[in-house]
Formats: sequence, C-alpha cells, structure tokens
Amino acid sequence: MVFIGAGNLATNLAKTLYKKGFSIQQVYSRTEESAKALADLVESTFTTSLEEVTNNASLYIVSLTDDALLQLLPNITKGKENALIVHTAGSISIDIWNGYAQRFGVLYPMQTFSKKRETSFQDIPFFIESNSPEDTELLKKIASILSDKVYYATSQQRCSLHLAAVFTCNFTNHMYALAAELLEKNNLPFDVMIPLIDETAAKVHLLPPCNAQTGPAARNDEEVMRKHLKMLSDDPATQNIYKLLSDSIISKKK
Amino acid sequence: MVFIGAGNLATNLAKTLYKKGFSIQQVYSRTEESAKALADLVESTFTTSLEEVTNNASLYIVSLTDDALLQLLPNITKGKENALIVHTAGSISIDIWNGYAQRFGVLYPMQTFSKKRETSFQDIPFFIESNSPEDTELLKKIASILSDKVYYATSQQRCSLHLAAVFTCNFTNHMYALAAELLEKNNLPFDVMIPLIDETAAKVHLLPPCNAQTGPAARNDEEVMRKHLKMLSDDPATQNIYKLLSDSIISKKK
Repeated sequence: MVFIGAGNLATNLAKTLYKKGFSIQQVYSRTEESAKALADLVESTFTTSLEEVTNNASLYIVSLTDDALLQLLPNITKGKENALIVHTAGSISIDIWNGYAQRFGVLYPMQTFSKKRETSFQDIPFFIESNSPEDTELLKKIASILSDKVYYATSQQRCSLHLAAVFTCNFTNHMYALAAELLEKNNLPFDVMIPLIDETAAKVHLLPPCNAQTGPAARNDEEVMRKHLKMLSDDPATQNIYKLLSDSIISKKK
Repeated sequence: MVFIGAGNLATNLAKTLYKKGFSIQQVYSRTEESAKALADLVESTFTTSLEEVTNNASLYIVSLTDDALLQLLPNITKGKENALIVHTAGSISIDIWNGYAQRFGVLYPMQTFSKKRETSFQDIPFFIESNSPEDTELLKKIASILSDKVYYATSQQRCSLHLAAVFTCNFTNHMYALAAELLEKNNLPFDVMIPLIDETAAKVHLLPPCNAQTGPAARNDEEVMRKHLKMLSDDPATQNIYKLLSDSIISKKK
C-alpha cells in the first residue's frame, strides 16, 4: 500500500491503517517535510518525486487537493496497470480515472482531519465506489476494518455529501472562528462558548435542525438584529454574513 | 417568584428553579396556552393580563422578546417598587430599568433552549448584573444553585457574548439546517452528518477554531469550490452564503 499525499486526511488514514496492521510501503508528498513526517509515523520509505513511486504496490491511496490530483493524474497512474488506485476526495467523480487506470475507485471518509489531532475512525462514515464488484468488495473489507459505517455511494451522492459536509463542518467551524474573533476584541475568553457549542451539536441528534433553531432571527426579534448589525459595523464582511444568515433563517421558517 | 414570559428560556429556567425547590407564584404570558402550559409544570397560577400580575412577589424574572420587553416595560414594573426585577436578555442593557424600577438587574443564561428538550443547567454560564451589590449577591446565590459557572458581566460584555452566541449557536444550527435541506433534495439521510458535527464541536475544546479549520476554502481548493457553487445554482441565497463564507475563511487565513 502506497500513500500519494501526506496531508491531514492521508496522515490520519495512514496512521490508522498502520495501527490496524497494514503495511505501508511508501509515502509521496510534494514537500520532503510532509513526506518524511508521515513516513516516520508509519515506518515507510518516502519520496518527493512521482517518478520514484514504486510500481509494485497492490493499492495506491491518492489523497491530494482536487487541483493537484487532476493535474498529476497521468504521472500518478503511469506504470501501475495492475494495481487498484483510489482517491479519497468528496467532490471528484470516479470517472477521472477512466483511460488512466484499469482498476480504480474511491474511499471517502467523511470527517474533518487535522494532523495534530488523532481521530478515531470507528464512527466515521466511509463512502466507497469502484469500477468492479471485486474491488468494491475489497474496499469494503478495508473500510470495515476501520469503521462500523461503510456505505456504497455513487459519485453524485458523494458530491452532495461533501457539499453538505462543508456546511456542517467547515462553515460551522467558521462560525466558531468569527465568534472567537468577536470575543477576543472584547477581551472575553472563547471557552465560555463551549457549553453552547456542545448543546447546539447535541440537539440535532434528536431534533431536525430546522426545529432546533432559536435566537433573534428565528423569533424575528428585529430590535436585537439591528443592534447586532450595528455592533458589526467595523467589519462589513462579517456584518454581511450576519445579515445574510439571519435572512436565510427567516426565509426558511416561512 | 413570578415569571413574565413563558417562552423557551422561561420554561427551562422556571422548571429548573421549581425542581431546585423555589416556589413560583405566577406565570404571565400573552397567550393562555403558553401561560397555562408553564404554570402547570411548576404548580403556579397564571394570567394573560399584566394588570393581574401580583405585586407581592420578591423577584420577577422577565423573559420576553426584546421588542415586547421594551414595549411593555411600564406595565411590567408598575406597583412593584420593592421587588427585584430582572430580565434574561443577552442584548438589552441593564439601563432600560432606570426610572421604572428601584431594584433591578439581569440574569442571562447563555444557552439555546427549546421547550421540548430538557436542558441541564449545571454547565451553563450565567452572566449577572444588578444596580446594587446586595442584589448582585442575591442573583449570584440563585444562579449558583443552578450552575457552576456564574460570572459578573457588564451590559456591554453581555452584548458581545450574545452576538458571539448567535454565531456559535444559531448560525451554526442554520448550517446544519442548510445541510439537511441539501441532503433531503438528494434523498440522503441527515444522520450520516452526526459524527462530523460532533467532531467539529469536539475539536474546538482543544484547538482555537482558526487552527481547526479544514475543507476547500481553507486549502483554497478552487476546483471544489467552483463545483459546489454550481451545485447550488438552483438556490441563489444559499449559493451566496457559500460564496461569502468561503471568502471569509480565505480572508481570515491571510
């Protein structure tokens, strides 16, 4: 097994596969720093040159930015006609492999990964896809060793899942970040927000999010919204976000 | 103790005070349905007329929308010169009571409340303020029976906290709601998002939100962002939210 890419997702996935007993032969990354860091963690060799990536592995897990993957596609696949090559991207169709590889697929763990934070894979939904029933079965076996939640998803379904994940994870985290910035400006600690963050997440385990909504926009409290917009007048971009999201909450309630 | 208002916050606060042994004499709400529902839960009488609210209580907890509070201020305070009157609003200054009451303050529990979901108060930060050291002490005592986290905050600090809370809670929940809508359109269940929601919340217990950020905007993956914007072309309002939030993530990284 070879990892092409050594970013947040690749690092967490490779470490977990390594711990589960898989042998990782080689790690490729554009930068030596990243390639070496991951290789050291999983006892593998590393390279920063795609030409030096071995052609003898049976599985290649490609975990690059979408831009890099599309650009490097011919170099990644060259000489690996007998291997199974998969990418881990939410928004890239399985069809990109067509004409470049014979056995190909997707292994998409839907989670937010940071190199510095160890992630438990047990609960992470994995969405798999491949161009043959045998390789789908193989990917299912590998994913099932990591997680209890392995699903088959078409490329179109995976795209929708990824888009929804950007909202639930990245945009949600950005709401936390904007709050942290506001609090810092007023010398207040971000920590006081933690119970609220946890309760907001816990609520949607039980209620559909539209039913869980509270706050000034949900109760159309114009007085509060006016005040908040005024408080944000020194930061027009964040003010605009406040306005747009409040409008969206109000419009979805109707 | 009398509750003026029987909304989400009032319901959760009154129920918890009742369980902790406080006696609730009366509940006022504009609608009989809400007034009676809360009164039944806390074994109190109820009224839908502010003139019928007793003047004999020692503490009035006023929990209305900000618009209603400001409008009803003279009627709420009339004849209650000896009592302590507090509101529970994040964004209303303590100064609104000036000229209307002699003993007044604020008791602001920073949390999202829904009538149908019982909320544990133990971890909820309470922010208190009053116009005398004695009443500050009294509010601190009451709040400390409910929660381990009781802080003094000025009206200005409370406003900043409330604005930050709108981002971390209401806007975050709206991100969940937009994701749920996207998934529904594609016949995918919202449940698959729960591990991602939990991990996103759990991460900021340990990392500052700006360091926890991942996803297409954080890694400036233009290919993915273009694709996502195209997928949202049938919903220009949500498309605009995607664009604005991605731009904001990118700009805050610089």
